[in-house]
Amino acid sequence: MKKNLKVIGFDADDTLWINETYYRDTEKCFVKLLQAFANEETVMTTLMNTEVRNLPLYGYGAKGFMLSMMETAIEVSQGKAGTEITAGIVRLGKELLNKPVVLLDGALEILQQLRGRFPAILITKGDLLDQERKLRKSGLDRYFHHIEIMSDKKEENYRKLLKRLKVKPEEFMMVGNSLKSDILPVLKMGAWGVHIPYHTTWVHEETDEDPQQWERFRTLKNLSGLLSLLD
Amino acid sequence: MKKNLKVIGFDADDTLWINETYYRDTEKCFVKLLQAFANEETVMTTLMNTEVRNLPLYGYGAKGFMLSMMETAIEVSQGKAGTEITAGIVRLGKELLNKPVVLLDGALEILQQLRGRFPAILITKGDLLDQERKLRKSGLDRYFHHIEIMSDKKEENYRKLLKRLKVKPEEFMMVGNSLKSDILPVLKMGAWGVHIPYHTTWVHEETDEDPQQWERFRTLKNLSGLLSLLD
Repeated sequence: MKKNLKVIGFDADDTLWINETYYRDTEKCFVKLLQAFANEETVMTTLMNTEVRNLPLYGYGAKGFMLSMMETAIEVSQGKAGTEITAGIVRLGKELLNKPVVLLDGALEILQQLRGRFPAILITKGDLLDQERKLRKSGLDRYFHHIEIMSDKKEENYRKLLKRLKVKPEEFMMVGNSLKSDILPVLKMGAWGVHIPYHTTWVHEETDEDPQQWERFRTLKNLSGLLSLLD
Repeated sequence: MKKNLKVIGFDADDTLWINETYYRDTEKCFVKLLQAFANEETVMTTLMNTEVRNLPLYGYGAKGFMLSMMETAIEVSQGKAGTEITAGIVRLGKELLNKPVVLLDGALEILQQLRGRFPAILITKGDLLDQERKLRKSGLDRYFHHIEIMSDKKEENYRKLLKRLKVKPEEFMMVGNSLKSDILPVLKMGAWGVHIPYHTTWVHEETDEDPQQWERFRTLKNLSGLLSLLD
């Protein structure tokens, strides 16, 4: 694998650092905030539907999530949620944006070991400012040759990026936790896709597609296994 | 000026297309929405203070604006704004995000005329998805060699961009309506800054600094004047 490889792309959220866990915690607090109006199942179903409906307009990230919580609160309370609920959502969202960046096992070590061997690029989606802030907080920015923040991780976006970097698909490897966003789009264009599952996946990131049919698909338990995969 | 120039950067909002006008219209509707609780001056002052306070956390763009309207509503109503206000803010924000893209005079013509003479790059700030959507709606994407969406337009961000493009400051010209974001940062690093004022400027974009001291500062009434400036 090593001989053709020129660039390795890393997803950020839930690949290099904890993210989805924070969202799950925020959702739990949100359910509690609305407990006078609806049960957990109703709140969570309404929230998920609202988020998916708003995705084309808001895109990924915490601000869109906050706005979808607002709409959910109005809906499940049938218009009875007062300003203490609105204020509670603002507080939860700001807390989410201010969470510490906690690196996942092996993240720092693998980037240190790859340094000078393969240029690493960070490929993430979501709010521009929020992702830049997380990267700065993570202390990992120095290990990346290039940072790419996309509005969505579709095959077309990866193609444009590789074209700009003058790298062929077979010379590129993407490492990430989301089959839908990190792995399947790059496998389809002929690149390597290394899947490292995270224990929690947002429902919207789930997929029924099977990546096993692609010969450049690999799966790892954690980032530490990447080096032996390359050798 | 022409002989050294290699790249021309264009701001988007209020340089190529209408933007601030839409925000002003939304603010007027927001003031009306809260008229039972506070007068225009109180609403507008509270909104401005909330937006500026939230900028480091939310960044620029419509979603942060929506969230700041939420906080403003809570504050000026002293907690009495009901869900009809929250729902009204969501509606206003979604309408803002869905506004048509209306090109400013000369935008299309100047980009057509520059084509093949100078590579044009689009340099904007705000929500990634929202800016991508506006560019697509504008039909201007084909005229740009590169699209750069920054979280903020500071001298440091311009420096990084030029380094990546392998262009020296004196070979670069930025065209835009904001002295603070488009013109002063590039003048300070030795590039050309062409200011085309828009009739409305967001208070936060105002500056006391005088660009006249820089020899590479120019000002134009509209985009159509750019070509004769280059010749």
